[in-house]
Amino acid sequence: MATQPKREPRTEPARATEGMLYEQVAQKLHEQVTNGVYRQGERVPSVRRLSDQLEVSISTVIEAYRRLESQGVLEARPQSGYYVRARLWQPPAQPEISKPPCSPTSVSVSALALKVLRASREPDVLQLGVAVPHTSLLPIKQLNGILARIARRDAGRGGGGYDFPPGSPELRRQIARRALDAGCTLSPEDIVTTSGCQEALSLCLRAVAKSGDTVAIESPAFYGTLQTIEQLRMKAIEIPTCPRRGISIEALELALDRWKVKACMLVPNFSNPTGALMPEERKKRLVQLLAEREVPLIEDDIYGDLSHRAPRPKAAKSYDRKGLVMLCSSFSKTLAPGYRVGWVVPGRWREQIEHLKYINTMATATLPQLAIAEFLERGGYDHYLRKVRAQYAQGVERMTHAVSRYFPDGSRVTQPTGGFVLWVELPKQVDALELHRRALARKILIAPGGLFSPKQAYRHCIRLTCAVPWDERLDRALVTLGRLAEELT
Amino acid sequence: MATQPKREPRTEPARATEGMLYEQVAQKLHEQVTNGVYRQGERVPSVRRLSDQLEVSISTVIEAYRRLESQGVLEARPQSGYYVRARLWQPPAQPEISKPPCSPTSVSVSALALKVLRASREPDVLQLGVAVPHTSLLPIKQLNGILARIARRDAGRGGGGYDFPPGSPELRRQIARRALDAGCTLSPEDIVTTSGCQEALSLCLRAVAKSGDTVAIESPAFYGTLQTIEQLRMKAIEIPTCPRRGISIEALELALDRWKVKACMLVPNFSNPTGALMPEERKKRLVQLLAEREVPLIEDDIYGDLSHRAPRPKAAKSYDRKGLVMLCSSFSKTLAPGYRVGWVVPGRWREQIEHLKYINTMATATLPQLAIAEFLERGGYDHYLRKVRAQYAQGVERMTHAVSRYFPDGSRVTQPTGGFVLWVELPKQVDALELHRRALARKILIAPGGLFSPKQAYRHCIRLTCAVPWDERLDRALVTLGRLAEELT
Repeated sequence: MATQPKREPRTEPARATEGMLYEQVAQKLHEQVTNGVYRQGERVPSVRRLSDQLEVSISTVIEAYRRLESQGVLEARPQSGYYVRARLWQPPAQPEISKPPCSPTSVSVSALALKVLRASREPDVLQLGVAVPHTSLLPIKQLNGILARIARRDAGRGGGGYDFPPGSPELRRQIARRALDAGCTLSPEDIVTTSGCQEALSLCLRAVAKSGDTVAIESPAFYGTLQTIEQLRMKAIEIPTCPRRGISIEALELALDRWKVKACMLVPNFSNPTGALMPEERKKRLVQLLAEREVPLIEDDIYGDLSHRAPRPKAAKSYDRKGLVMLCSSFSKTLAPGYRVGWVVPGRWREQIEHLKYINTMATATLPQLAIAEFLERGGYDHYLRKVRAQYAQGVERMTHAVSRYFPDGSRVTQPTGGFVLWVELPKQVDALELHRRALARKILIAPGGLFSPKQAYRHCIRLTCAVPWDERLDRALVTLGRLAEELT
Repeated sequence: MATQPKREPRTEPARATEGMLYEQVAQKLHEQVTNGVYRQGERVPSVRRLSDQLEVSISTVIEAYRRLESQGVLEARPQSGYYVRARLWQPPAQPEISKPPCSPTSVSVSALALKVLRASREPDVLQLGVAVPHTSLLPIKQLNGILARIARRDAGRGGGGYDFPPGSPELRRQIARRALDAGCTLSPEDIVTTSGCQEALSLCLRAVAKSGDTVAIESPAFYGTLQTIEQLRMKAIEIPTCPRRGISIEALELALDRWKVKACMLVPNFSNPTGALMPEERKKRLVQLLAEREVPLIEDDIYGDLSHRAPRPKAAKSYDRKGLVMLCSSFSKTLAPGYRVGWVVPGRWREQIEHLKYINTMATATLPQLAIAEFLERGGYDHYLRKVRAQYAQGVERMTHAVSRYFPDGSRVTQPTGGFVLWVELPKQVDALELHRRALARKILIAPGGLFSPKQAYRHCIRLTCAVPWDERLDRALVTLGRLAEELT
């Protein structure tokens, strides 16, 4: 370094690349903090020094440091530089890997789910029980503006005629472009649009399995998946799942050896409810294992774009060489739940899914598809993602902190690196269903753990949503929840 | 009459009632023409005379006569009065009552349906094969205008959050109000909105029957129904059906005696494809019969509002006393196919349907529901219906005429009094699938008869859509179709 000549101000080629670059710089430093290279309270390299070390411009480093500051990783001290922010509290331990029963079982969560769903409709309830972002966190205003313009511009296209499956070509083109971020090289023809991710999941399951068949799932698992399995009268085999690294592939292999598993239905990226992220190597092994056995993987990637750090993780689909992975997603967690626009890349079941979509709902509503396609085309999505990822990272951190302060000793909580839900394991004796009831009486909705397994296990667990703006009411609600949980210990 | 004192100009109480009144007058006279009280070329009563006879205002009679003129029933002759229009051609005979096989069977129409569906997506094909109104016949512009306003006004409501089942309260309130026209007294709570009628039908079938069960259907029957039965691995028992008066209730009773029928799935008002309208008395008997056996009726009323004459027929649901009729409909044939807004009144399966809707697609898109609700509230729907009913009556008449002129001798065609599809029975030796192929090669899409029964019977029949604007291209296409059919005799 000392031999370097007098430095010219560096410039990076293009704006787009620079945007990527500062994120890469931020991520690199964040990793070093995570790995303990820089500890709490320590000073990180000066802007000039890091600019030299990484051979990037001063402004890129400044942007990266500001980003890390807004994420609560660094703090700026006047006339001194940037320091690793001291966490004044210790996050609670994370839950252990789950140990579900090791044989297929029928599912019965529907009645409970309907009860929770109904409570979610009451307008004056604090919504910590459904995984739906608060409206203020969504770019609805821009989207609705685009939609309104399209509606006025093109009456024929917008409402007349059905947008028959596979759905809007404009939207499928945009989805194919973005899929590269998840490591998938797709053509618009590979994609079928759906009325949300739930329809996509349901169609996939109907395409590859029938009543009585067994489906391998995470434990705990998304209750939409469980209810679909229940409604189709299939059976579920739960696979032990680590709240950090996702399902145990070894356990899955044993299950495949022992039972006739017709499909595997997972959320590899930021699973709901644990937020587990399968490392790339494990995703790859998962896809290989299923390919050897010719078992289809129904991949729910609805949270993939909501990684707290860029770049987002790859989809398991990106490792698929045999068309066995059916990739499902939607814009309901990122753009507009009420638009009901999702999609599926059905691999070798392309034809069946197109047809099932037609039988199920004939077509997806046209205008919402066109509005999202235009939003994606204009580049608004990336801008939005950058903002909201930081917001969710902060929301998760704050709620984790609240749990650590207000909840009973011995509570454990996940530390997701994407998405916006927390899975809280309360002391064994706490009846989460009773907690749900008492909280609801105080206008707070939480999701009881029983929702997340076929026979309503996890009776001492709850799921909390962090996609709500932080305010006093929320803080008070978490105090109340902690107190109610304490009463039940 | 002669003793009547000097007449004061009559006034009817309110504008709304008057609107009803002139329609009633028109209908009364139309019935007299149909019944031969007035024959072709005969003069009908003068305006003044009918005003006296019926004790309605002059202006009401004038409006009624104009209506009948626009429907092609009467013609005005200057300085002379109104005459029954002479039909210069004789409509072909109608098809006879169907005689389907009398035992339950599995269904296999999906592959054929997918083929026809795909052809319907080609933009330069004349669309006579799908039952979708041409955009110019739909009030899309007004609807899109309303939708755009709502989108700009209320970002939170329009796109953020899910409109969880049972769906938009505004829309359910409007549907409940309108249901009176179909003889149904409903509360908004009785209704669940869906992503089109197809989802409603599919959810109903899933609620009341399971794989292997038998469902009674019309013959010929709507292919959406057939494909749903096929996809759910159920069986269909076809009931002999008259193209004028719908299914034979006697035959249905025999089928119920002999087989374990789990549900009956019908289009009592203007069935697709025959346009059959079950007389009220038969609908009532149907509902009674099914009530005795505790068999649910899934009623598809999607064409009910498109009766060519007001008032529209009652829904079978209006005779339901046991909550056994599940009434399904949508706005796809009347307002906006691309909005994907339908609904179901599930009777005693209210709870199951709400839950199935949630599992199937989570929610119906919000903005389209709100736009339709506002359109209905403003009264735009009635105005639109008056116009479009006359258009479809004329479209049906014109196409029937073309069939009578251009199609091979011995062809039969239905005479629907509502909706916009014609069912044409060609001479036995015509292979309708081959006709479909040859027509498609000439950029004309028709629906081959095989689509409308479980084992692709009706191989010499086709369905034609009359909801296309009449122009030279259409006329030429019908000449071509006739010639192609002739070649196949």
